[in-house]
Amino acid sequence: MPSDTATLLIHCPDRPGLVHDVTGFIFAHQGNIIDLQQHIDPDQGAFFMRLEWSLENFTLEAAEIEPRLQPLARRHEMRLQLHFASRRKRVALFVSKDSHCLYDLLARHEAGDLPVDIPLIVSNHEHLRPAAERFGIPFHHLPVTPETKVAQEARQIELLRDAGIDTIVLARYMQILSPAMIEAFPNQILNIHHSFLPAFVGAKPYHQAYERGVKIIGATSHYVTADLDQGPIIHQDVMRVSHEDSVQDLVRLGRDLEKTVLAKALWWHVRDRVLVFRNKTVVFE
Amino acid sequence: MPSDTATLLIHCPDRPGLVHDVTGFIFAHQGNIIDLQQHIDPDQGAFFMRLEWSLENFTLEAAEIEPRLQPLARRHEMRLQLHFASRRKRVALFVSKDSHCLYDLLARHEAGDLPVDIPLIVSNHEHLRPAAERFGIPFHHLPVTPETKVAQEARQIELLRDAGIDTIVLARYMQILSPAMIEAFPNQILNIHHSFLPAFVGAKPYHQAYERGVKIIGATSHYVTADLDQGPIIHQDVMRVSHEDSVQDLVRLGRDLEKTVLAKALWWHVRDRVLVFRNKTVVFE
Amino acid sequence: MPSDTATLLIHCPDRPGLVHDVTGFIFAHQGNIIDLQQHIDPDQGAFFMRLEWSLENFTLEAAEIEPRLQPLARRHEMRLQLHFASRRKRVALFVSKDSHCLYDLLARHEAGDLPVDIPLIVSNHEHLRPAAERFGIPFHHLPVTPETKVAQEARQIELLRDAGIDTIVLARYMQILSPAMIEAFPNQILNIHHSFLPAFVGAKPYHQAYERGVKIIGATSHYVTADLDQGPIIHQDVMRVSHEDSVQDLVRLGRDLEKTVLAKALWWHVRDRVLVFRNKTVVFE
Amino acid sequence: MPSDTATLLIHCPDRPGLVHDVTGFIFAHQGNIIDLQQHIDPDQGAFFMRLEWSLENFTLEAAEIEPRLQPLARRHEMRLQLHFASRRKRVALFVSKDSHCLYDLLARHEAGDLPVDIPLIVSNHEHLRPAAERFGIPFHHLPVTPETKVAQEARQIELLRDAGIDTIVLARYMQILSPAMIEAFPNQILNIHHSFLPAFVGAKPYHQAYERGVKIIGATSHYVTADLDQGPIIHQDVMRVSHEDSVQDLVRLGRDLEKTVLAKALWWHVRDRVLVFRNKTVVFE
Repeated sequence: MPSDTATLLIHCPDRPGLVHDVTGFIFAHQGNIIDLQQHIDPDQGAFFMRLEWSLENFTLEAAEIEPRLQPLARRHEMRLQLHFASRRKRVALFVSKDSHCLYDLLARHEAGDLPVDIPLIVSNHEHLRPAAERFGIPFHHLPVTPETKVAQEARQIELLRDAGIDTIVLARYMQILSPAMIEAFPNQILNIHHSFLPAFVGAKPYHQAYERGVKIIGATSHYVTADLDQGPIIHQDVMRVSHEDSVQDLVRLGRDLEKTVLAKALWWHVRDRVLVFRNKTVVFE
Repeated sequence: MPSDTATLLIHCPDRPGLVHDVTGFIFAHQGNIIDLQQHIDPDQGAFFMRLEWSLENFTLEAAEIEPRLQPLARRHEMRLQLHFASRRKRVALFVSKDSHCLYDLLARHEAGDLPVDIPLIVSNHEHLRPAAERFGIPFHHLPVTPETKVAQEARQIELLRDAGIDTIVLARYMQILSPAMIEAFPNQILNIHHSFLPAFVGAKPYHQAYERGVKIIGATSHYVTADLDQGPIIHQDVMRVSHEDSVQDLVRLGRDLEKTVLAKALWWHVRDRVLVFRNKTVVFE
Repeated sequence: MPSDTATLLIHCPDRPGLVHDVTGFIFAHQGNIIDLQQHIDPDQGAFFMRLEWSLENFTLEAAEIEPRLQPLARRHEMRLQLHFASRRKRVALFVSKDSHCLYDLLARHEAGDLPVDIPLIVSNHEHLRPAAERFGIPFHHLPVTPETKVAQEARQIELLRDAGIDTIVLARYMQILSPAMIEAFPNQILNIHHSFLPAFVGAKPYHQAYERGVKIIGATSHYVTADLDQGPIIHQDVMRVSHEDSVQDLVRLGRDLEKTVLAKALWWHVRDRVLVFRNKTVVFE
Repeated sequence: MPSDTATLLIHCPDRPGLVHDVTGFIFAHQGNIIDLQQHIDPDQGAFFMRLEWSLENFTLEAAEIEPRLQPLARRHEMRLQLHFASRRKRVALFVSKDSHCLYDLLARHEAGDLPVDIPLIVSNHEHLRPAAERFGIPFHHLPVTPETKVAQEARQIELLRDAGIDTIVLARYMQILSPAMIEAFPNQILNIHHSFLPAFVGAKPYHQAYERGVKIIGATSHYVTADLDQGPIIHQDVMRVSHEDSVQDLVRLGRDLEKTVLAKALWWHVRDRVLVFRNKTVVFE
């Protein structure tokens, strides 16, 4: 792959000439497009595009690109995001007591399969400190009680800002974030919910699944919004279960789904393949 | 496979010696067990068993088996069902306007992959009469309006009784059955719902799925009970979809799920592999 | 969706400005791009693109488009295919004795889910004539023996040419086509092989699967080339099986895979979403 | 679940009365059967059964059970294995340089999801020593060269014997074991092969998959036998890939399959749910 690439995520009202205009900008500065996906939603009249190009011979500096794109963006009422592969996202992992998602992400990271920096791990329990320390990542224990919640979240936000965090992963964090936190990181907080949403919203989804007698269980990764378990879905997967499986079996089996679904959603997020539009995601796989 | 087999489906309170007692009955009359699956639900203290044996050298007549089992059944408070492979189930297909499940079942039947008799097809529209006639199966058009519903269902039940029907398949019938109909065929009416229940109960599940922005769609086959879409689930499956799929795409793609899930559920039903217990199924795959 | 669309499938050596050049052509004639997918294969230095645009306000006649694209195509050494959604593909179905793929395709066609014309069905047996006649499609019985094979294929090619066929679907045809036939329809003949290729090439794949004791079975749809079962793979899928399944069970279960995989591959083919490059396919899903 | 259970795995020539005889033995000593699965293979005339019962009120000591079963076993020419849930299997992990399967198994183990003891990890490289040490498990570096192979394997076998190992997991070990090693642990060595066998036997299966242009990749866990990649298959799974995936992508994506498939196969193995018969497995799920 090329040494460095830039990625544009764009949505705007559909009209002729959009692809030509944007690719003209890339071509004029000697960029070579590696990957382009574009489609329109005819019902919404909306245009969506992801465009990744090599910066190898590109004649603009990174800092110049966005300003130089502005006239074009304004002309077409575009909302655009610009990302650089070389600027690794800085990810904070939020955990509670369950270790499976945490270990899975840390093992991927160590193996080089997750191109991000992980400057810190936050938890409301001490439980997973040893796991964090094994991988040499600072662990911040910030217990939350109804009384301390506001103060703790303020500290969390400060901590995240200081560490230059741009992505938060709730790796089975089990706490509901306050609106202040969610607004501070819009479409930058990924959660893993242990059901195929919208089924089994809220607490104890495996118990709900057991009670209903479903033959599949699922997991859903979504961006966190102010409405609990209602944010834009990034990825979902399911697994077959049977009448022989107890609630405890569902919990155990579901862990495999949770870690895989969360890791996949995070992969797409860090590769700048997810665009949010009206509480849904466009995932440019 | 042996020329003829009998199958027992049993549930009762768990206690030691149940398997031994039942297999003793089979052995005493020189039956050879082909397939036995048994498990207990420790939370419920419930025992479940499916037992299929060859009738090749069995010393009891078919009609004698159930009466001779009664003392044993009473002793252990067993609920038991007895089926014979040679007595093919008689299935009525209920359809509306969509043909995909109907053609799928008729094609399987013609190919010899669905060991049942299909004496009749019932519909509230004329739409699929040609499909029925192509396969030489009598088609009964019984239009339903709010005013005629009671009378029509009475006619339907009569028709089904006359034809010796023991299984009804709602192959995208799109009508809600009355309690009288449901009570007349307890755990004998299979429906296919076009979502992964309990998500998207009720009307237009693909529209609901599109609105929510899910990344998977599903289908669920369940026995019909008085509570809409709440009956015991027999089988479910899902399929991946993307942001590019319109509602119409979901409808089209979902047809493949619907026909496969319904056919699989029906297969297990006709092979006497499904036992209903407290609004859940035990499926002895 | 727009009333009519055109689709370009392109591959060529990669260089900067390709997307811009092609989209410039579309824009210059007032076409609106609906869907564009492009990527490069860095190992091969190859560029691949699928571009679909609305012909609603397009200022070129259909017949003019390809000639007017030639200078651009020559300049970039492009191989291009141009298709129109309004020109439905004309598909011949080749069958033998198994009916499942045939019924599945005919039912989809009748339901409007397969936008093609099916002018004829060809078979080396009389077996499925009734199925063809039920759906009102001419059925040609052309028995093949080693002695008659050359003559029969010559007749088949003539028949196909007369009917204006551009796509042949071997829906479990079970005969090996001669090189003459294959050359006459390059990358236009779709086969369904009943295994996950490259495992179990050749005859009786379910028997081979049973012997090996695999836990999954599969089906593969590919374009037919001169090398048996070695053509470019379009689609594959698998299904879980168990030690309890006999060869006959595998055959029965596999039918569901075969029909679904073949239908999906054909869908992509008729939607002009498949591009062949060096014995592999690029499938623009 | 009951505090302790015993499990019998049995195969023998089929004849009437087998289930009754074995369950009679359990009942006579006041055992309560929790789970029983039995089926016959009519082609082979073979009988297979797994039977798990509670030892809570069982009147025989653990050590007495097998001797007391012998007359019954001899009478029916049974091959039987007896296991106790309370006697955790002792598992040695063999690794090379890839960490994903190792971390996955260690994380499961720590979380209590893998009821075994792991007394040691063996590797031909130093690479994963830190990973082992993080989880506090002794790591033995036994480098292998063609010259030292015989001596090293002798040391390995000694090490394994000393540690009371009964199960070896080749968690991407990448070395071919000698016949001596394989014979010392018959049907006790689990391997994970990174393809859906029998496709892509041998080295570099992802490269082979890329060359062939398959649309799915897979992983297979099997018992190791003297024939490379030909042992009895325990579990397989696959994942969809596309033309956009490079070999490196396949390698990365495949890791998720490898770790999940190996963990599932090991789960069944340690729960005494796998029986080997003529180079195939019966997996009592």
